[in-house]
Amino acid sequence: MLATKNTTSATIPLDEIMLNALKAFDKYKKNSPEQKATFLETIANEIEALGDALINMASEETNLPAARLTGERARTTMQLRMFATMVKEGSWVDASIDTSMPDRKPAPKPDLRKMLIPLGPVIVFGASNFPFAYSTAGGDTASALAAGCSVVVKAHPAHAKTSLMVYEAIKTAIKKCNMPADVFQHVHDEGFKTGKDLVQHPATAAVGFTGSLSGGKALYDYAFERKNPIPVFSEMGSINPVIFFNDTLENNSAELVKMYAGSVTLGMGQFCTNPGLMIAVESKALNTFLENLSEEISKFVPSKMLHEGIQKAYIEKQEKALSQKGVTLIKKSAYQSNGIKTLPAIAAVTGETFLNNPTLHEEVFGPYSLMVKCKDIDELKRVWLSVSGQLTTSLMGTDKDFNDNKELIEIAPAIAGRINFNNPPTGVDVCPSMVHGGPFPATTDSRFTAVGINSVKRWVRPICFQNCPEYLLPLELKNINIKKIWRLVNNQLTNGDVE
Amino acid sequence: MLATKNTTSATIPLDEIMLNALKAFDKYKKNSPEQKATFLETIANEIEALGDALINMASEETNLPAARLTGERARTTMQLRMFATMVKEGSWVDASIDTSMPDRKPAPKPDLRKMLIPLGPVIVFGASNFPFAYSTAGGDTASALAAGCSVVVKAHPAHAKTSLMVYEAIKTAIKKCNMPADVFQHVHDEGFKTGKDLVQHPATAAVGFTGSLSGGKALYDYAFERKNPIPVFSEMGSINPVIFFNDTLENNSAELVKMYAGSVTLGMGQFCTNPGLMIAVESKALNTFLENLSEEISKFVPSKMLHEGIQKAYIEKQEKALSQKGVTLIKKSAYQSNGIKTLPAIAAVTGETFLNNPTLHEEVFGPYSLMVKCKDIDELKRVWLSVSGQLTTSLMGTDKDFNDNKELIEIAPAIAGRINFNNPPTGVDVCPSMVHGGPFPATTDSRFTAVGINSVKRWVRPICFQNCPEYLLPLELKNINIKKIWRLVNNQLTNGDVE
Repeated sequence: MLATKNTTSATIPLDEIMLNALKAFDKYKKNSPEQKATFLETIANEIEALGDALINMASEETNLPAARLTGERARTTMQLRMFATMVKEGSWVDASIDTSMPDRKPAPKPDLRKMLIPLGPVIVFGASNFPFAYSTAGGDTASALAAGCSVVVKAHPAHAKTSLMVYEAIKTAIKKCNMPADVFQHVHDEGFKTGKDLVQHPATAAVGFTGSLSGGKALYDYAFERKNPIPVFSEMGSINPVIFFNDTLENNSAELVKMYAGSVTLGMGQFCTNPGLMIAVESKALNTFLENLSEEISKFVPSKMLHEGIQKAYIEKQEKALSQKGVTLIKKSAYQSNGIKTLPAIAAVTGETFLNNPTLHEEVFGPYSLMVKCKDIDELKRVWLSVSGQLTTSLMGTDKDFNDNKELIEIAPAIAGRINFNNPPTGVDVCPSMVHGGPFPATTDSRFTAVGINSVKRWVRPICFQNCPEYLLPLELKNINIKKIWRLVNNQLTNGDVE
Repeated sequence: MLATKNTTSATIPLDEIMLNALKAFDKYKKNSPEQKATFLETIANEIEALGDALINMASEETNLPAARLTGERARTTMQLRMFATMVKEGSWVDASIDTSMPDRKPAPKPDLRKMLIPLGPVIVFGASNFPFAYSTAGGDTASALAAGCSVVVKAHPAHAKTSLMVYEAIKTAIKKCNMPADVFQHVHDEGFKTGKDLVQHPATAAVGFTGSLSGGKALYDYAFERKNPIPVFSEMGSINPVIFFNDTLENNSAELVKMYAGSVTLGMGQFCTNPGLMIAVESKALNTFLENLSEEISKFVPSKMLHEGIQKAYIEKQEKALSQKGVTLIKKSAYQSNGIKTLPAIAAVTGETFLNNPTLHEEVFGPYSLMVKCKDIDELKRVWLSVSGQLTTSLMGTDKDFNDNKELIEIAPAIAGRINFNNPPTGVDVCPSMVHGGPFPATTDSRFTAVGINSVKRWVRPICFQNCPEYLLPLELKNINIKKIWRLVNNQLTNGDVE
């Protein structure tokens, strides 16, 4: 309770919070899948019940328009319900059963049964750019609660009141569903020290973060300093390189301009999947595309960014990029509505200059995109491979382009967690096949995703029961498969009973 | 090639090795599942073709008896063939397909398809106590090659010649299967620097280690120091606590003595699953059990340990443990064959003393076991919870014991990766349901296992293809499911085609 007040790190009783999180975990994990699912669904209902008040508060705190926030809220409640469905269905525990073979030589084979269990209390750090879907009751919280973990959210200072409203909705759900009061706790503090202390507390089992490279890496470092290291999944920056092939530039230029301009400026470019880098081989068609793209971008009416810190960083980083030797500004937006200086910009540079200047590889968080004009496909390949780990990389091409560049396209998986074909990178669909992750520094562990049902895998570990009496086995591992979940039984996938 | 010579770190061309590993990875991963499977099977065949010469060399280098080594070799080739079967069957890639919904509101749904792909070159550090199954062509190598990774093994100095023989077998398999020559490379060096340099090389994608806490944690630290952190799976020490309940001590004492004495002394106690800690509530039956156990252990004829360093550490650590205040030596082995001083010992201590002395929580690698005599079940619980993360924990009890202690037994998953019921912890069955892992310091990441087909998950990451033309999709993600692998298609598990 204390933790929800506006307190300073010195007065936040972190020991008490984490001890409560651990106690709540021990109780919460024993709930049936149906109880956990109802809890997740009730959180979704209670968030919806906040109505316009929540949207208004978020809009006030983040400058994001109501339509966008309404969509984000729908995504957030959809995620909670998606995890509820997953938990109810039950196969996500990856159950596996190998029955005993008493007569096996040289030694009898014991009965072995395996499933996934929750890690423990998870600390979630919300994102500034997604006050709902990647924050208080966002994907990290939903997946951790689905796993059976308790959660402590460190509210993002940029939308602390919104976070508090969502917290109240979760508290109502906790009461309605008779869940342990501290299965979800909410800490609000402006400072960095609280975050560090939460990550390093002995009772903390894992950490989820969405935000900047500096923030995500700092948490990773804090976890490393622990006596017992714990998993930290930080989803961090990305410039999401987009390749434009020749044939499509020649034949689909107008369409590409519209798609790309929309993607760069969507939500004032404040997405981790915002395309910050274009790569193409120089040609007349490319120049035409760039001119038209810049023209299209110049028509865009900018709006306020999430908060002053982000706006300031955007302007500084854009100016720094544009001032690099060899960088040509094609065009900035013509508008300066309400004195907003956040002008989308499209710039260009040669392949060689890009390869030799690490500053140009840095993310400019906001509506900005740099075109790297390569002298040939070999240089394009080198430029593409020179960027560090990415959330996405995209390929704009016709069938002719793809067939002409098959070997090049094979590189894509090495670069990113998701590869788009003739699709803008923005727009992260929430479904089992989504991968929102990628090699460092896109995330701290490329083996996981932050979006979709598989994001639950970040908060669970396998446990094996050897020769366990049937009456002590968890429901998921008993001979009778009452929930008809999919299990690997003696190497065969089946939703039947063990015979 | 150079790398197989007895070289010093200064002369090992690590850059060349890692560059070759990366090049080989790019070629190797493109092999079909059938080609990779044949390669793994051929390695198994070639290891078997080495015949007695391999067993003799390993026995000479490790002091392990031929019978044990023959069994271990069988396990090693079985593992290679198990992964071959997994790769051929193909469902291990966790394929998932969500087809497009062009009419979805508010935005069309793109086609999304996901599968697991290999991380890149993996460095494997072999274990001293398993010259075959956890070394050169052991579980780490087999799972990494199955994933599609190239491998660089740093040979364990304690059985370097055995390692070299296995390497020759793999080289023959590489030639026979027409695989890239450097898909597997072998580095032999006594120093620590080479290991550090391998872990920190930019081309290295992941690390597998089996051995001591100090060694495994050091590699973890080296990886952390990288510009881009990479996954390190270190499987380290464990004392594998065994709980003895009252009713079974009263009724099954003789059987328990036999089982436990066998487990403590198996392979001179040189297993990471060796039971180093017993916990029970004090009783007359417990005293009788302890006396009989010590009597049984005293009959054991010790043999030479793996190497002098391990023998020295065993004697020192055992003496240190036995010299702690409050520790009573029950009995040591009566034998001192061939002047071997490695005498198995059983000791006892009170719960309170154990709780207050961290030295008693440390692993004594070798045949040694400490009984913690608790004053009641509550103290037993505290003692059990006081040990750090374990590979296994075991429960010896009758149905009456288990029913009387249901709440206590629920703690077990928090302690270890595997829970044994009336089974000794030694003997790690290789099957899909096995978990050879556990919370730190048992391993550096409890979300993975080092044994069984799921160990492949350490070396892979998911990749998502968005709106990818059918002709560019990997075989596993095409509409026609030619291999009939299990895939999640629009949220339904099926081995059919996409319609």
